[in-house]
Amino acid sequence: MTKPGTAANGLFLEDLRVGQRFSSGEHTIDAAQIMAFAAQFDPQAFHLDGEAAKATLFGGLAASGWHTAAITMKLLVESGLPLGGGIIGSGGEISWPKPTRPGDALSVVSEIEEVNPSRSRPDRGMIRVRSETRNQRGETVQILIAKLVVPRRTTAALAT
Amino acid sequence: MTKPGTAANGLFLEDLRVGQRFSSGEHTIDAAQIMAFAAQFDPQAFHLDGEAAKATLFGGLAASGWHTAAITMKLLVESGLPLGGGIIGSGGEISWPKPTRPGDALSVVSEIEEVNPSRSRPDRGMIRVRSETRNQRGETVQILIAKLVVPRRTTAALAT
Repeated sequence: MTKPGTAANGLFLEDLRVGQRFSSGEHTIDAAQIMAFAAQFDPQAFHLDGEAAKATLFGGLAASGWHTAAITMKLLVESGLPLGGGIIGSGGEISWPKPTRPGDALSVVSEIEEVNPSRSRPDRGMIRVRSETRNQRGETVQILIAKLVVPRRTTAALAT
Repeated sequence: MTKPGTAANGLFLEDLRVGQRFSSGEHTIDAAQIMAFAAQFDPQAFHLDGEAAKATLFGGLAASGWHTAAITMKLLVESGLPLGGGIIGSGGEISWPKPTRPGDALSVVSEIEEVNPSRSRPDRGMIRVRSETRNQRGETVQILIAKLVVPRRTTAALAT
């Protein structure tokens, strides 16, 4: 069964195991992207102006953490986490151990930490996924521990 | 003392107390904004295509959770959380109890939950802030519990 918005060869709840790991492609960020995102969503000097940023806690231009989160999502959707029902999060924990800088090439490594079938909804379950976003030096710029809703492959059969 | 990127009349660590509350202005989101953000950062049918979205778990077009997070940040920076050193987060917990829909007018109510001076760095401290993003019906679409770095007003004096 392929529903709109699902990857034809994506993974469903039955396909997922604790410890499974996935790697995304890469996205390179530059100063123009950092400033454009910041102008729209996080208009603070350390995200908008390289000169002014030098005098701040960041010591130079840095991406908004929400920009790093958005790029992480893009990498997960496009290549990093091939879920058949799409990537649907109910929430999670996020941290930014280091800033994202102009020129950084970001990629995401994800690991399944929990797989829990729903007791009340036989068509789905929840998984917990730890996604580390790293730059080209292997430094972790974001850790996201997300709770995702994942449909079972057998949804259609159970629903009828 | 006003540094680049700081609000001239913003609050510093000494000004913050547990239980203080702040309210932001409003941002109205429409389908075009939802689809533009999704095309760039979260290209999934339920964020990109109102028709296709009907057949998904969302039952219609919904904003990416990261879009709701980015708009929340914009509201906090522009009006919702007047910190003198800017809004600098090290991380936090985020959840999306309800989807954000086209036409929603979002605003943010924040409450200071903790104020902790740093033991090792006399020029700053950490605060924990709970920010609820609500739509025009008063429904909460996002809860963010963020840990922020906040400078002391007396930084300059201590540094010399």
